Amino acid sequence: MRAPLIDNLQYCNFSEKVFRQLRAGGVDAIHVTIAYHESFREMVFNLEKWNRWFERYPNLIRRATSASDVRAAMNEGRTAVLFGFQNPSPIEDDIGLIEIVHQLGVRFMQLTYNNQSLLATGCYEAEDTGLTRFGAQAVAEMNRVGLVIDMSHSGERSTLEAIDASARPIAITHANPSLWYPARRNFSDEVLRALTGRGGMLGFSLYPHHLKDGTDCTLESFCQMIAEAAERYGVVNLGLGSDLCQDQPDSIVEWMRVGRWSKGIDYGEGSADAPGFPPMPEWFQDNRDWGSIRDGLRCVGFSRDDVDALMGGNWLRFYKDNFEPQ
Amino acid sequence: MRAPLIDNLQYCNFSEKVFRQLRAGGVDAIHVTIAYHESFREMVFNLEKWNRWFERYPNLIRRATSASDVRAAMNEGRTAVLFGFQNPSPIEDDIGLIEIVHQLGVRFMQLTYNNQSLLATGCYEAEDTGLTRFGAQAVAEMNRVGLVIDMSHSGERSTLEAIDASARPIAITHANPSLWYPARRNFSDEVLRALTGRGGMLGFSLYPHHLKDGTDCTLESFCQMIAEAAERYGVVNLGLGSDLCQDQPDSIVEWMRVGRWSKGIDYGEGSADAPGFPPMPEWFQDNRDWGSIRDGLRCVGFSRDDVDALMGGNWLRFYKDNFEPQ
Repeated sequence: MRAPLIDNLQYCNFSEKVFRQLRAGGVDAIHVTIAYHESFREMVFNLEKWNRWFERYPNLIRRATSASDVRAAMNEGRTAVLFGFQNPSPIEDDIGLIEIVHQLGVRFMQLTYNNQSLLATGCYEAEDTGLTRFGAQAVAEMNRVGLVIDMSHSGERSTLEAIDASARPIAITHANPSLWYPARRNFSDEVLRALTGRGGMLGFSLYPHHLKDGTDCTLESFCQMIAEAAERYGVVNLGLGSDLCQDQPDSIVEWMRVGRWSKGIDYGEGSADAPGFPPMPEWFQDNRDWGSIRDGLRCVGFSRDDVDALMGGNWLRFYKDNFEPQ
Repeated sequence: MRAPLIDNLQYCNFSEKVFRQLRAGGVDAIHVTIAYHESFREMVFNLEKWNRWFERYPNLIRRATSASDVRAAMNEGRTAVLFGFQNPSPIEDDIGLIEIVHQLGVRFMQLTYNNQSLLATGCYEAEDTGLTRFGAQAVAEMNRVGLVIDMSHSGERSTLEAIDASARPIAITHANPSLWYPARRNFSDEVLRALTGRGGMLGFSLYPHHLKDGTDCTLESFCQMIAEAAERYGVVNLGLGSDLCQDQPDSIVEWMRVGRWSKGIDYGEGSADAPGFPPMPEWFQDNRDWGSIRDGLRCVGFSRDDVDALMGGNWLRFYKDNFEPQ
């Protein structure tokens, strides 16, 4: 069977247009963000929206909660859609909601989104105390039910503690190595060694604030970064998590940064001069452009098998191992 | 006009019996806890419950949101009831709810209850990073609207940072000095000096876990502790906050400790051998026993004026200065 093409993080303003581009680009599965700041009930509204899309576009997309759902989507010529949260806000203060959201099909949950959460510390807080009392309990419960811990927006210490506390591999779904580009959202060699040493996955981000030279980052530089990461951390623990936010208005990135917690503006990775979404690199505009990355990876010396693994095979294996209750 | 008798923290299982005891004991005002773990909507249910009690017992109690409401209650021969939260859970992740809860009559809010919150660190976490990004914003907004910051269940660093960040005096409504008895919930000399140095108030707790010798604490020891605190921190910044939880079943203290954040048991200040509410000292069983404390304070040498200030005059002045928008 052919290898899958999987993008393990997207937050597009989804529409028939985007779904058709996913098919045109041969994307077999995407992991989409269901919540940034939503309460449990608000998050359920977002699931309802996806249910309407699945009902309306059955030839383009399908709901997916397992590796076998992705395999089925490949056979059917549809794109499998997996759900995740970039913040634990939907579980509110209730450990019982972890199993409930898994039963609703959610498969990834970040313990923090930039700020301190009830579980751990985000990467924008001045200091990081690691897992809280609730956080330690939540990690064990996520392990039990098969909800993957994602630390993409967490602080360094929280990330190391989550890797250590988790009995199952965890993920950083969308970030890059700091060694290549030291953005606040990228991760140190120490974290990436710990992550991958325990079988955890790193998804490489294409969001310009995470790229060396931003929007002007070259395809070669991006692929060379992956080649170096493969040498350090092993090809098997690496995949893609584009962070593609196609067709979103700038009001959305403002909401992502500020939620409801501040009356003032917080620019996050942006600035007063550039408060909106940054333009994507010219070689990756939308889901029809994955072929250029595939070619770029071949050019920096990856074998065909390694490219297949990086483009989705590794995520599919990770799904198979980590979405079931233990 | 006579001085008021004010208890600035109670969480009784309120009933006509308790309201009659408040009148029998001559209690002019109580600050009652409206939320420990409640969401905004759940907290509103508790306000509704109080509205029904105000409707049903208009000769015994009245809703109060200001010092003048307390004065009115004294004239009317009723007990004024002020509202507060022991946790910021009702404001959820929404800074706009701070003004809303003030508009609903809430006048005190703890930034944490034992655990890490979105705003600051509770006294049971292993480490304390002080105010979070949201916490710093919340302090400014609470100052603006006139919602008093209460740090009774917070960690030391969070408490010091809140004192420092707040433009208005804050409160520790129910705790005692660690110098007298080093319980986890009592506060260091450094914190109490900082608190009172900025005009903040300390309410002395009668909850046995905060008392030297627990349930067996003597009235003399309790009053002697207040005399020493008055020397160190000044009589004007001291009052009462009994933490009286009369008629509550032990299931309530379990819920107070565990909320919804843990599947296991957490004994908090209790233990496996003594998991329930501890028995109150024999000299303070309920709201009819305030006279014994008044007498005890006279016995350790306080003047009549100082006793009046400690028994409620200081809280009334604090209400007058801190409940209005700025």
